[in-house]
Amino acid sequence: MYTLYSMQRSGNCYKVRLALTQLAIPHRAVEIDILKGESRTPDFLAMNPNGRVPVLEVGPQRYLAESNAILWFVGDGTPLAPTDRIQRAEAMQWMFFEQHSLEPNLGQAYFWLTLVKGGRELQSHAIEDWMERGYQALGVMEKHLQSHDYFVDGRYSIADIALYAYTHCAEESGFDLALFPALRAWLSRVAAQTDHVPMLALQSAQRLPA
Amino acid sequence: MYTLYSMQRSGNCYKVRLALTQLAIPHRAVEIDILKGESRTPDFLAMNPNGRVPVLEVGPQRYLAESNAILWFVGDGTPLAPTDRIQRAEAMQWMFFEQHSLEPNLGQAYFWLTLVKGGRELQSHAIEDWMERGYQALGVMEKHLQSHDYFVDGRYSIADIALYAYTHCAEESGFDLALFPALRAWLSRVAAQTDHVPMLALQSAQRLPA
Repeated sequence: MYTLYSMQRSGNCYKVRLALTQLAIPHRAVEIDILKGESRTPDFLAMNPNGRVPVLEVGPQRYLAESNAILWFVGDGTPLAPTDRIQRAEAMQWMFFEQHSLEPNLGQAYFWLTLVKGGRELQSHAIEDWMERGYQALGVMEKHLQSHDYFVDGRYSIADIALYAYTHCAEESGFDLALFPALRAWLSRVAAQTDHVPMLALQSAQRLPA
Repeated sequence: MYTLYSMQRSGNCYKVRLALTQLAIPHRAVEIDILKGESRTPDFLAMNPNGRVPVLEVGPQRYLAESNAILWFVGDGTPLAPTDRIQRAEAMQWMFFEQHSLEPNLGQAYFWLTLVKGGRELQSHAIEDWMERGYQALGVMEKHLQSHDYFVDGRYSIADIALYAYTHCAEESGFDLALFPALRAWLSRVAAQTDHVPMLALQSAQRLPA
């Protein structure tokens, strides 16, 4: 059985939890509180030298990091991953877009503005860039969703899971999604998928001390 | 034949050019000067709404963006991509690491500090973060390379190509690679691969007006 090291309020971790649930893959979950430094201990760094969650133990002493790599690992060969060569590349395209253009902005905004006490002051030099680039990325998604129900091949896949994670909670850190009607309709379609689980199933979002 | 829309002095574009060359895949190259706004024209945005190079035309009116997605598209099924399930996931892990933890720091530093005139002043609020996070990422790579010749399965792959692109020119934007001896040895091993081509084959790096 896989062991998933993750933090519930992390969008990157939520992706993996959602996919494992929808694929009915049994797993044991270990909560890692990154706000308490639990991803920077020697034991954790031995699993992932980059000191980030999620990490999936895929074999004895064999650990896989990076949420979207884990999505491919668990999703490939299932209905959640495309099989056509170009569609596989399109799914990867959107997942690299997510980690390069979306998550560094929406994800950092979510982390520093909703989870870390005093985060707005600590990151005041960066917020304008996050908002500007975050809106740019949301605009690229909106444009695609104006003529597509999902990101690849007209059906729900790991690409949607990757893009959903930080988009669905973007309003909590100040992004106005009313500007993106096609994107909002897609968020609803994703949330209506079979076996969908919310990010905060057991607790509501709250500010914790850093 | 594929058409590659790219800019020679972009590390992300260099990845694709290097892989296409080493795989002996015929292609036509179209130079896009992003400093002159050529990736923001209506024609270009119709190919990639995210307005970034590289873009590979993989079929009639079918365009693929995101350098690492393109590397998988051209490399999968060749000796440059692993076949084992966990090793494939490890290659993806390093490639997502590259786009999330390395390129946003080394790549932005390279762009703004070596290519854009006045870039240092325009981005003065961001440089400290790029340097701090860039060194963190280089440290993660150094740690891996202290006990591995390459990033996956002990041999050269698209993961090495992805990580090489911005690392090999990091000193131009002020990173001191003398701190990372294992990484420097890996850079030499990559440069010694059969059919390796340098990023700036036809012209030397130069500052251009924005």
